Amino acid sequence: MTVARILPTPEAYELLDLATELADRELAPQVESFEARAEFPRDVLRTLGRAGLLGLPYPEEVGGGAQPYEVYLQVLEVLASRWLAVAEAVSVHTLACYPVAAYGGEQLRKLLPDMLGGELLGAYCLSEPQGGSDAAALTTKAVRDDDAYVVTGTKAWITHAHHADFYNIFCRTGGPGPAGISCLLADAGTAGIVPQAPEKTMGLRSSPIAQIAFDGARVPADRLVGEEGTGFKIAMSALDSGRLGIAACAVGLAQGALDYAVAYAREREQFGRPIAEFQGLGFLLADMATAVSAARALTLAAARLRDAGRPYSIEAAKAKLFATDTAMRVTTDAVQVLGGYGYVADHPVERYMREAKVLQIVEGTNQIQRLVISRSLGRP
Amino acid sequence: MTVARILPTPEAYELLDLATELADRELAPQVESFEARAEFPRDVLRTLGRAGLLGLPYPEEVGGGAQPYEVYLQVLEVLASRWLAVAEAVSVHTLACYPVAAYGGEQLRKLLPDMLGGELLGAYCLSEPQGGSDAAALTTKAVRDDDAYVVTGTKAWITHAHHADFYNIFCRTGGPGPAGISCLLADAGTAGIVPQAPEKTMGLRSSPIAQIAFDGARVPADRLVGEEGTGFKIAMSALDSGRLGIAACAVGLAQGALDYAVAYAREREQFGRPIAEFQGLGFLLADMATAVSAARALTLAAARLRDAGRPYSIEAAKAKLFATDTAMRVTTDAVQVLGGYGYVADHPVERYMREAKVLQIVEGTNQIQRLVISRSLGRP
Amino acid sequence: MTVARILPTPEAYELLDLATELADRELAPQVESFEARAEFPRDVLRTLGRAGLLGLPYPEEVGGGAQPYEVYLQVLEVLASRWLAVAEAVSVHTLACYPVAAYGGEQLRKLLPDMLGGELLGAYCLSEPQGGSDAAALTTKAVRDDDAYVVTGTKAWITHAHHADFYNIFCRTGGPGPAGISCLLADAGTAGIVPQAPEKTMGLRSSPIAQIAFDGARVPADRLVGEEGTGFKIAMSALDSGRLGIAACAVGLAQGALDYAVAYAREREQFGRPIAEFQGLGFLLADMATAVSAARALTLAAARLRDAGRPYSIEAAKAKLFATDTAMRVTTDAVQVLGGYGYVADHPVERYMREAKVLQIVEGTNQIQRLVISRSLGRP
Amino acid sequence: MTVARILPTPEAYELLDLATELADRELAPQVESFEARAEFPRDVLRTLGRAGLLGLPYPEEVGGGAQPYEVYLQVLEVLASRWLAVAEAVSVHTLACYPVAAYGGEQLRKLLPDMLGGELLGAYCLSEPQGGSDAAALTTKAVRDDDAYVVTGTKAWITHAHHADFYNIFCRTGGPGPAGISCLLADAGTAGIVPQAPEKTMGLRSSPIAQIAFDGARVPADRLVGEEGTGFKIAMSALDSGRLGIAACAVGLAQGALDYAVAYAREREQFGRPIAEFQGLGFLLADMATAVSAARALTLAAARLRDAGRPYSIEAAKAKLFATDTAMRVTTDAVQVLGGYGYVADHPVERYMREAKVLQIVEGTNQIQRLVISRSLGRP
Repeated sequence: MTVARILPTPEAYELLDLATELADRELAPQVESFEARAEFPRDVLRTLGRAGLLGLPYPEEVGGGAQPYEVYLQVLEVLASRWLAVAEAVSVHTLACYPVAAYGGEQLRKLLPDMLGGELLGAYCLSEPQGGSDAAALTTKAVRDDDAYVVTGTKAWITHAHHADFYNIFCRTGGPGPAGISCLLADAGTAGIVPQAPEKTMGLRSSPIAQIAFDGARVPADRLVGEEGTGFKIAMSALDSGRLGIAACAVGLAQGALDYAVAYAREREQFGRPIAEFQGLGFLLADMATAVSAARALTLAAARLRDAGRPYSIEAAKAKLFATDTAMRVTTDAVQVLGGYGYVADHPVERYMREAKVLQIVEGTNQIQRLVISRSLGRP
Repeated sequence: MTVARILPTPEAYELLDLATELADRELAPQVESFEARAEFPRDVLRTLGRAGLLGLPYPEEVGGGAQPYEVYLQVLEVLASRWLAVAEAVSVHTLACYPVAAYGGEQLRKLLPDMLGGELLGAYCLSEPQGGSDAAALTTKAVRDDDAYVVTGTKAWITHAHHADFYNIFCRTGGPGPAGISCLLADAGTAGIVPQAPEKTMGLRSSPIAQIAFDGARVPADRLVGEEGTGFKIAMSALDSGRLGIAACAVGLAQGALDYAVAYAREREQFGRPIAEFQGLGFLLADMATAVSAARALTLAAARLRDAGRPYSIEAAKAKLFATDTAMRVTTDAVQVLGGYGYVADHPVERYMREAKVLQIVEGTNQIQRLVISRSLGRP
Repeated sequence: MTVARILPTPEAYELLDLATELADRELAPQVESFEARAEFPRDVLRTLGRAGLLGLPYPEEVGGGAQPYEVYLQVLEVLASRWLAVAEAVSVHTLACYPVAAYGGEQLRKLLPDMLGGELLGAYCLSEPQGGSDAAALTTKAVRDDDAYVVTGTKAWITHAHHADFYNIFCRTGGPGPAGISCLLADAGTAGIVPQAPEKTMGLRSSPIAQIAFDGARVPADRLVGEEGTGFKIAMSALDSGRLGIAACAVGLAQGALDYAVAYAREREQFGRPIAEFQGLGFLLADMATAVSAARALTLAAARLRDAGRPYSIEAAKAKLFATDTAMRVTTDAVQVLGGYGYVADHPVERYMREAKVLQIVEGTNQIQRLVISRSLGRP
Repeated sequence: MTVARILPTPEAYELLDLATELADRELAPQVESFEARAEFPRDVLRTLGRAGLLGLPYPEEVGGGAQPYEVYLQVLEVLASRWLAVAEAVSVHTLACYPVAAYGGEQLRKLLPDMLGGELLGAYCLSEPQGGSDAAALTTKAVRDDDAYVVTGTKAWITHAHHADFYNIFCRTGGPGPAGISCLLADAGTAGIVPQAPEKTMGLRSSPIAQIAFDGARVPADRLVGEEGTGFKIAMSALDSGRLGIAACAVGLAQGALDYAVAYAREREQFGRPIAEFQGLGFLLADMATAVSAARALTLAAARLRDAGRPYSIEAAKAKLFATDTAMRVTTDAVQVLGGYGYVADHPVERYMREAKVLQIVEGTNQIQRLVISRSLGRP
């Protein structure tokens, strides 16, 4: 990946170099075997944590990297170009640290160094089997009982199920609607928190997702993040950041697919010439390259708004929509560039294509992004 | 699948009913387990053969169904909507019977009843590992030695490898270029014909493809189809028919995905209403439905040209291009309609999406189709 | 236009030849000057009428051509490839004859020979300035007064305003909603029917459209078509046929643009070769050609359903949607093929592009088509 | 246009405010009448020049604004959202100053203050009637005769023909190919420089383009820009900047169309609600908004590379390709949002659509951009 980047600080260039080196050394050689075994690379995550890559956008005083989102996202992108599941794990973990980092009281914040250092891996329990896009309708209940909340219900599509050390649980402590939702930070070992069998997903297999059953799990009351009733607000503001993370993953995945297809097309000959030199394929590659550049630029523009403290929610939705649609199209076309060779596991492009699809769905389907964007139009 | 069809004869309506019944009874219940095990359903093919579905477009006097392509393709479509690998097997087998049926001498034609009845399963060995789209450059050699041709070389991407009873081998008996190519019909048991390990494909797993090594295989000289040097002509004219077959498979696959997505979207509720009733999803489904109808109409229009004895090669290329691009798009969008549920193996749409990709590649990549079409433009 | 067509009768081939001859002789030489002057070619319409092309799908006993829609639409297509405004005029006129032909009593039907022969040109007054897609909300009133209806209101987007001899007026004779709507057939000369200034349209200028003010116009009561309250049903069933007409116009326009672009690209040289031979442009032309063929096939498939007396409303909506979207894309790309030369009036492609846009809007915007299609999905 | 912008300096914010104010006060009220009359707004250009907007990216010491391209392009964008022809005139003029500013000797540079101040309007004569995309094949000759070059030939597609005060003429002073091309700066009044009749363009009518005949025009030898034989290099490096200018124009045009469509869709009601609230239209608007944001981000990312002295040629080609394709799509869809009202001159969207098309063609067709991009892929 030889992408021309303008970064804000010399430190950021070093960080990108570090990420690239780790991606080449730790990720690239292992991705295929972990994917084939559907095994979660906990050690790889630990390595990234020790290198400081699991808490990049958080303040230094709690163990973070104090990096702007603009830089953090480009690190994600580099990781995703080698191993999407790892990049997505970094994004999910970073998101899982957000409630405590942004809303947690002093006591909870003491956990941050271990969280941001990657010793404790996090997960994020918002979706429910029936809920889909309608987050405010969630039904998992948390009933106060003495010094604990007793949590009952089922969460779905949970990344890091079985592997997380802590869970952010969005649950209903009050009446219906957004105002009745709270956020709890639970230890994974809590009795009554039961991860179910992993889903058989089309791709991203080394990052298993599963339902988690909460069967009267007692979470200590001091594990409430923020106030009762602020859960929906927390979830929504985390979501904006999460969308940027997914957008960056999509850019990296698409770049990886483009790079592979370009290299193949310059090597592979037909009718006596490298196939990249035929305009039919060359123009396809040019459109892919253009889309990837546009997706990156849009994502980083949204990140700079966030970094500047400006409203960025709508631009994040646009970035998520555009970058993931781009990844789907570019990876599908990358298979096409390789022809029959693209359809078999000897080359990674078929994996890229299977992986891309999930990005159009998570952190709000792209239909939800369009809804969010359309509602903002013409509003001051 | 409730598609409004106008068929040319009452017999054709019965045939479609039969195909639908077999698809529902024999294909639908078995597809998932065979795909999961990557096992070829030889018995299913036999059942179809006994029902008369393996020789539909060939004359009755050699055991065929005497059906116009317009009807044959709609049978393929119905099968593909349930189990693409089976429909593709029917298409490949039908293609594998074509050289003998169209160019074979009296002796070879005696094999046709068993071929068209499905007792003998056929394969088609044209592509080579390095050859890609440049068929005329093939290097597999057949050297005449006494009463046999000795065949040496490697063929790639062979459907029915390991399972076929006979192979059409396109090989070089003369000098370079198209004029040096001949077609041999070899028994699968011939010494020196060695199917290699199956490819690990993204989809269509119950129809394994593999390379086949020809290691001095002796094919009797009377197994030459047509004359020496006519192999390229045979291959190209078979290809036109093969493109129609793939187009029909693509239409069926896309219809299957559409039907599943529609059924889901009318059942699944969000925000208190079936999600199909939201225009955001409804318009997506409408675009999918429109594309499927257009792909079907284009494919059948090309078939009617063939049936009328008119030139149809270019229209077949358009049908293959358009129908398979449609299948790719529609299956990808079908996953989107199901959201997270579309990404897991509990529903077939992720399989449809993996399957669709191969159709854009086989029987000439869609880039080759565009080349064929563009060269015809403005020519009388 | 050398399109391979399979027509149902020898007579139909003759009809297509006639249409082609008239298109070449009467339409092609005049289109540019009429467009430049925004002048309606009343005489051309008269010529087409005398050649029998203005009543093709109606029975012979009332002066029609007794042709199936499949044939009528291909005539429209041929005309549209030369002069869209004339083809659209034929389509609108044919539509304007439909209420009387399908629902009119004996008295009204006596007008049919002059209508179908083109001596009387028709128009169709359904839309209103505020109404847009919500036809059932129309507000033009018709109040029974003695032996006449007194019509008051304003109709918008009326093709043939200023030139029509008769108007179908859809107006409210009863309460709100569809059930209160009736259809009147008024002479253009009726006092109080006042066409307004023509709209300044982006294209299709030789077929001016305008609002028509109804200012207490007295339409004799025996000019009621069908019963009171059946107007909405008449309008909707006419609309289905009208959609097929627009689809055919779109196919013809796109074919005209494609033909022009191909001819140019084979003539024009760059870097020492005809630009059509560069894959970059060749693949674009191939995609255009494929889309045009698909649009035609879909349109004719819908027509055959209509001809067979089968439900065709949804397929007509798909055809309208797909064919007009295709025309927009193909004409825009045709300009691109010519580069700078495409942007100037020396070549017709910039006109084609301006014309294509209106087809995505009339007879129900393509958004309305999607709505119609989406509502049908999954319904038996 | 309420676009969230992050600008590099406080001065840049002021500049954008100034541009917005001028656009609202001087451009918006006049655009329709100038377009209708196809009249060039020389006075408007003068006003912009006096406000300092005609030399923004050039050094202050020669009368420029010393602004980075990132800022200059956003000024262009604001102007283009109101009146594309004026923005394009600014872009062309800025480009026309580039040869002298970048390669001119001391003598020629004395002209810069009047050029950059807008007292002298510039034009750029590179294309030829037969040349198209093959600039290196140009045939206009300049033969040295004493103290002058005698120029003979024809240039085509010249913006500001009839209105420019000076012309950059790219002409052949040596042998065939790029190395034989030089650049001359000629006064418009030079005998033998004869602008021809303006082209009848589909849009952008207030900025007439025309061929210019050079009929033995004597251009003083000291008007040679750079050395003999450096003309092609000058032209190519100007082209990279020119592409950024066109990209910015495209972003502005698309934003203008989006804004208009959004405002209309929030006002216009159907079925009792603003049409923007129907997802069918809302999602369309969301896709338009997303594409515009992506086009802007990509354009500004390329500009920042240029401002940082980094290679930016390929990213400029991507920006030109993506932004102009976006403008074409967004303006076409904006017409759709207005339905019939979009097709008439009462609203500006039909003009936007006619204007957008030219942007896909100028400064290298989008096919040429794809060629440029594809050739760079995989190259270090």
